[in-house]
Amino acid sequence: MADDTVGFIGLGAMGGEMARHLVAKGIRVQGFDLRSEAVARLAAQGGVACASPAEAAAGVSALVLMVASAAQVEAVLADGSEAALPPGAAVILHSTVPPSFAAALGARLEAAGHPFLDAPVSGGQVGARDGRLTIMASGSPAAFAAAAPVLASYSQKVWRLGDVAGAGSTVKLVNQHLAGVHIVAAAEAMALAARAGVDPGLVFEVISTSAGRSWMFENRVPHMLARDFTPLSAVEIFVKDLGIVLDAGRERRFPLPLAAVAHQQFLAAAAAGLGAEDDAAVVKVYEKLAGIEVKG
Amino acid sequence: MADDTVGFIGLGAMGGEMARHLVAKGIRVQGFDLRSEAVARLAAQGGVACASPAEAAAGVSALVLMVASAAQVEAVLADGSEAALPPGAAVILHSTVPPSFAAALGARLEAAGHPFLDAPVSGGQVGARDGRLTIMASGSPAAFAAAAPVLASYSQKVWRLGDVAGAGSTVKLVNQHLAGVHIVAAAEAMALAARAGVDPGLVFEVISTSAGRSWMFENRVPHMLARDFTPLSAVEIFVKDLGIVLDAGRERRFPLPLAAVAHQQFLAAAAAGLGAEDDAAVVKVYEKLAGIEVKG
Repeated sequence: MADDTVGFIGLGAMGGEMARHLVAKGIRVQGFDLRSEAVARLAAQGGVACASPAEAAAGVSALVLMVASAAQVEAVLADGSEAALPPGAAVILHSTVPPSFAAALGARLEAAGHPFLDAPVSGGQVGARDGRLTIMASGSPAAFAAAAPVLASYSQKVWRLGDVAGAGSTVKLVNQHLAGVHIVAAAEAMALAARAGVDPGLVFEVISTSAGRSWMFENRVPHMLARDFTPLSAVEIFVKDLGIVLDAGRERRFPLPLAAVAHQQFLAAAAAGLGAEDDAAVVKVYEKLAGIEVKG
Repeated sequence: MADDTVGFIGLGAMGGEMARHLVAKGIRVQGFDLRSEAVARLAAQGGVACASPAEAAAGVSALVLMVASAAQVEAVLADGSEAALPPGAAVILHSTVPPSFAAALGARLEAAGHPFLDAPVSGGQVGARDGRLTIMASGSPAAFAAAAPVLASYSQKVWRLGDVAGAGSTVKLVNQHLAGVHIVAAAEAMALAARAGVDPGLVFEVISTSAGRSWMFENRVPHMLARDFTPLSAVEIFVKDLGIVLDAGRERRFPLPLAAVAHQQFLAAAAAGLGAEDDAAVVKVYEKLAGIEVKG
């Protein structure tokens, strides 16, 4: 019975979709979120509404955490969910957190008999909606075994990055480093083109088939050209994630000058009141300065 | 007769290959380079060896310039090739130069009756060797018409970016901005992974299928992992090209903080004596500092 019950804390834009896929696979999902409407939505989809982290963790074989930050992870664990975990229940952490945090948490939970999977996700809201996330995971064989049926419900690929928590989060940070820098690079280069008076739509077409292309260039520049900054992933996500990248560099005594500048540009966007817009809105930092517009 | 004769100045790693393709298409090619062995190679392939820029320009329908910089363009034009051009002969400029330079040169040559094509190339030594370059071109309809059979000999794609010289060079700079930033981003992110103790080969595999990927990441990280810094495109190329990008931003009064940092990292590589190595050697700037190695 317990084998079929999963706790899920953090039912936001991505977590809500992931929990829905679990329910659809016939798994009993005990969901909790600070926003009661998110919990109600899960219940309407067939999940079990819980009023506290402890309630979500009671009787589960695995507890999934998809909250926004390491601080929130600590908070929900301290707020009863860790204490309520049955002996041997696994913990799967999908949040983007500092690798050192994931490593320390993994060591503590494994010592307490809870297999722990450091398992950040990639693929965004669209990947979550379609059940096609990529999971960058590390942890004990027991943690991988316990997580397998859960992850299979909403992922297309699970990378096994080692036996110790921390490696998964490190690889996720490497991805976020590149993704964040590439978004700012796309914004800066397209803004330069606009400033120089070249048609941005044509530039997009040329670069998309040239050596200057990136996944982010091809994905985000169309948002700029269409002037559609509906947040698929918000500026604030990269304020946070590049912040974690830089913290990891600081902790490791490792300089990351390019990531530092990209972070400053996302901070500039947030300073301009664009934090909740799509991350492609970082282009407006350049546009506002020079009175130009990247549109096609 | 003149319709079948093309002058070609700058027979280096790329220019030599391009001239070879022209010869192979049955076009009479009058070649000049400061290095006599490059001229001798062209002659051995069926081209005409010339002893000066003026000799290369005499009697041609079009003069192709594939030298290293705007200064070299000015030098070869001043050194007799411009004066030797037959009336109405076109000039095709493939070098990466400041857009303002291309625009001014185009205006001057067009006023003198020489159709001028601002036509920087993309694709590197491999693209030149295979006759599959991409050309980012702007100029008068007459310039496009005169250049068509020439460009067809060594390109797979000619972008028409407008009627005025300068647009081609601008788009090329946008590409070089992104390419240069992406190489440094790849180096910085992979070095962070190595510093954090994660297997770089595995990280490469994960990122290559994730949102953090770029054309440069997928192309250059294998050079790092194999520790093969044979220069397919050297560090000094990006010292130069990102320098031109930054100059263009300065001229236009436009800030390019990300490109500025990437340029500094290529300069750091050059300072460490790596200027003639493959541009992927910028990773050694990070490696030397921290005593790590990105190898897989």
